[in-house]
Amino acid sequence: MKIAVALAGLAAMAAAAVWPVPAVFTTGNDTTAVPSGPMLAGNTTSAILNDALERYRAIINKETFTPPADYKMQLPATAGKLSALEVRLGCDDETLSLGTDESYTLDIPVSGKASITAATVYGALRGLETFSQLIVAYSGSRVIRNTPVHIEDRPALAHRGLLLDTSRNYYPVADLKRTLDAMSYNKLNVFHWHIVDAQSWPVESRAYPGLQKNSSYGADMRYSYGDVQDVISYARARGIRVIPEFDMPGHMFVVGETYPEIMSCLNKQPNWDKYAAEPPSGQLNIAKPAAADFAAGLIGEYTKLFTDEVFHLGGDEVNRNCWSEDPDVKAYLAAHSNATVETLLADFYTKVHAAVGAGQRVGMSWEETLFKSEYVPPKDTIIQTWIDEQSIPKTVARGYRSVASPASAYYLDCGHGAWLANFDGNSWCDPYKSWMHVYNFDPWANVTSSAQRELIIGAEVALWSEQADSVSLDNYLWPRAAAMAETAWSGKKDASGQVRTTAQVVQRLHDQRFRMVGRGIGAVPLQPLWCARNPGGCLLP
Amino acid sequence: MKIAVALAGLAAMAAAAVWPVPAVFTTGNDTTAVPSGPMLAGNTTSAILNDALERYRAIINKETFTPPADYKMQLPATAGKLSALEVRLGCDDETLSLGTDESYTLDIPVSGKASITAATVYGALRGLETFSQLIVAYSGSRVIRNTPVHIEDRPALAHRGLLLDTSRNYYPVADLKRTLDAMSYNKLNVFHWHIVDAQSWPVESRAYPGLQKNSSYGADMRYSYGDVQDVISYARARGIRVIPEFDMPGHMFVVGETYPEIMSCLNKQPNWDKYAAEPPSGQLNIAKPAAADFAAGLIGEYTKLFTDEVFHLGGDEVNRNCWSEDPDVKAYLAAHSNATVETLLADFYTKVHAAVGAGQRVGMSWEETLFKSEYVPPKDTIIQTWIDEQSIPKTVARGYRSVASPASAYYLDCGHGAWLANFDGNSWCDPYKSWMHVYNFDPWANVTSSAQRELIIGAEVALWSEQADSVSLDNYLWPRAAAMAETAWSGKKDASGQVRTTAQVVQRLHDQRFRMVGRGIGAVPLQPLWCARNPGGCLLP
Repeated sequence: MKIAVALAGLAAMAAAAVWPVPAVFTTGNDTTAVPSGPMLAGNTTSAILNDALERYRAIINKETFTPPADYKMQLPATAGKLSALEVRLGCDDETLSLGTDESYTLDIPVSGKASITAATVYGALRGLETFSQLIVAYSGSRVIRNTPVHIEDRPALAHRGLLLDTSRNYYPVADLKRTLDAMSYNKLNVFHWHIVDAQSWPVESRAYPGLQKNSSYGADMRYSYGDVQDVISYARARGIRVIPEFDMPGHMFVVGETYPEIMSCLNKQPNWDKYAAEPPSGQLNIAKPAAADFAAGLIGEYTKLFTDEVFHLGGDEVNRNCWSEDPDVKAYLAAHSNATVETLLADFYTKVHAAVGAGQRVGMSWEETLFKSEYVPPKDTIIQTWIDEQSIPKTVARGYRSVASPASAYYLDCGHGAWLANFDGNSWCDPYKSWMHVYNFDPWANVTSSAQRELIIGAEVALWSEQADSVSLDNYLWPRAAAMAETAWSGKKDASGQVRTTAQVVQRLHDQRFRMVGRGIGAVPLQPLWCARNPGGCLLP
Repeated sequence: MKIAVALAGLAAMAAAAVWPVPAVFTTGNDTTAVPSGPMLAGNTTSAILNDALERYRAIINKETFTPPADYKMQLPATAGKLSALEVRLGCDDETLSLGTDESYTLDIPVSGKASITAATVYGALRGLETFSQLIVAYSGSRVIRNTPVHIEDRPALAHRGLLLDTSRNYYPVADLKRTLDAMSYNKLNVFHWHIVDAQSWPVESRAYPGLQKNSSYGADMRYSYGDVQDVISYARARGIRVIPEFDMPGHMFVVGETYPEIMSCLNKQPNWDKYAAEPPSGQLNIAKPAAADFAAGLIGEYTKLFTDEVFHLGGDEVNRNCWSEDPDVKAYLAAHSNATVETLLADFYTKVHAAVGAGQRVGMSWEETLFKSEYVPPKDTIIQTWIDEQSIPKTVARGYRSVASPASAYYLDCGHGAWLANFDGNSWCDPYKSWMHVYNFDPWANVTSSAQRELIIGAEVALWSEQADSVSLDNYLWPRAAAMAETAWSGKKDASGQVRTTAQVVQRLHDQRFRMVGRGIGAVPLQPLWCARNPGGCLLP
């Protein structure tokens, strides 16, 4: 009777479907009425927390979500009524960083006042999200099931990220804000803004104004300084850090539209594949000091505009052939017998990482900088791995901090076929990463030493935009990014030490998906509604 | 210099990017201004044509589409001005059927009055769509490029379809109407409404009211008679036939929620896979005369509600085990020594096809009815193939008419991973069918006899909704359904007899995609905008 046990377990969970699941979660057997109107209170000077209280008041007061499995259920009898939710902060400080304490405790009695206790503003925000998810509606009346509720919660990973590429195709600021909303509904806390790439340069530069002027996709497809500040502020209000990426020295064709003199292999056609991973080709010319100066200038400018402690330098998919065929590089190497393309690249990295340090920032780089160059990054550099799942254990074995973004599990653009217009084949990272595949990935796999496990600081899904833009954004991201979010917040194992399975969590993810749709996020369905309503009915025997 | 030639060819096509491409299309070198305001005229008593003139007036008067490759172009000098578009009909008759003549001729002079000449109202509608696509905007001014234009056009296939499954997940009527709009922009002409399946019964039944009452997903997820009539009328106004499918005897679990006594193997769990292709299992009980009577009753009712000459009976994925283990079937077979499950199934098909005939309709069936049963369908039955691309030649070799829907090319739901909640694997019909893969499929492959080629009457893409609903509808369908639409309307070859390649047509499809987005359809991007703006720049060498 294994199936009957599983079904009973799933049904019992339906009423308390918090996503991601809290670390400690004890429940009772009563139902508590939730009155309409403002009832969230916090004695705080934090504008961020006060804004969040306002925001969650609005979310709660219009919540109409009913768990799909409860579709035949009437309003249950209530044993008490919530009078208020009080938020108690350890400290009103609003600093948001990799080290921010996001833990919180939430208590909801059968009747009376609920409370969130948190060390920081951002822990309180996480508690508010959890509180909002406990509220469900039956016949238009809002209740909290299974009271009293006691929750103690904290994240498994400090960096829980989502990368969006706004260069290959552009996304309006409204899309970014909606994405930040959805991230907050899943306790994600890093928006990795892959803001420029070879195809377009949407962001304003005051040091190099030609970049945006010549290489944004148009006047209506730009991010001004004001837009960036607006996005950072909107993100911070939701406890989300914004890490910008200026990918160099590859992926920079677009710089050549303004500064061709510091570039190599600009838009080689038709054989671009000898020079770049995708068209248009173009890399900063590492034989030219002006190229490294330009890069340092960019970093100097954008470490002022972007306020987070971490600054991403890219460093992926550098093509050696682009340089070895470059006339200036050839001439330089002919004149300097000790130099090679590799030493030039290492010199370049030395300069740009120094510029990051000069900007009082911590560098972040794609894994090639560590594994495929002669450069030795500063020890505080955060290494984002994507090529191979085994790069995570390799990174921490080298003593570097790791953010896990394996293409094999966390690249949300995969599986939509090739996009070069004459190739009827699969995407390079086929297949599509289903929510189950995303969910089942373990960032800690093959890392046993506790010191090395602590160096695994993050996980991040990525949406590269070759085949995505505003029209498809939500469908690509949700609910698959939510699947990663539970791993990153809750870890892989439940309280009993068992790895959570997709069969165990699917019902909660249905709930989260419908909740998100109700909040205006275009999250795709997991299954026929019949399956969401009949827990356990859609499992492979 | 092959690439240079190709680029020049693509650039020259950019200004006249009609999708699907017309059969005969000659152009000049001038540009004609298109004034605002109503200027479409037709001397007709056809309400459908008059409505279409109104509709296209609105579309044209708000057209802001500029071909992406022309993003730097200023308004070209105009050599003349359009004074009106006159539509000349051979006949005002509004009959819409498989045999309807959809051909038209379109002439646009450099200056003066343009004209559409068509034998029928529906040919005129196709001409209006073409005319609307010739209008492009530069700096807010609308023009037609490359005038004078002369087009002669007609479809390669009479049945150009799109299947939507509204049972596994529900779609509001507004979604269906938007889909019909998008179909009309691509000259598709059959909406195959897979209206019920095992998971829900959204449509009203007056003969069996319990079906909708008990088995729709909810009061807000139903199609009333009025809704169906509204959809049919909306479709007809766009020259689109609505073919309903009532899939039997499999895929009918939902009937068992009201009539369990006529069903076999109702929702067997957990081993549903022995009884059905997916949960919940349930088939009409072929040993019970009441089951065939019920089916005939359904057909009797719905051949009145649905007005098209074709009525789809389903017949796919019938599971023999569901019956061979059924106690009633066993008892029947024990008492009738000449009977088998196969003879019972053939008897069932005989009765339901007779009911279709009694309703003055032509039956349509999935290929299993022809290839995997002992039943011999009436010779006028239209066979829809899906399992194997070779089923198309096999169907026409047997003398039946074929509509091609191979899962390997035309199933738009494939490639999103498995959906049973405990299986981290690929979808059964992986990979995702990219627009290029859809485009490259040839429904006429391996059929050489002209008599047999004429039996290939249609092509149809399908969206099964296990992992799709209102939130993801447009993303799944567009522009991939448009890729099929060009094959179905224009055939595989250009005027010189060469098979069109994706590299040749990608620029036109970019245009069509952006045009559709402008008209409110959520069609996904094919590539980075950079590629759309730089024809030939994103090809595999």
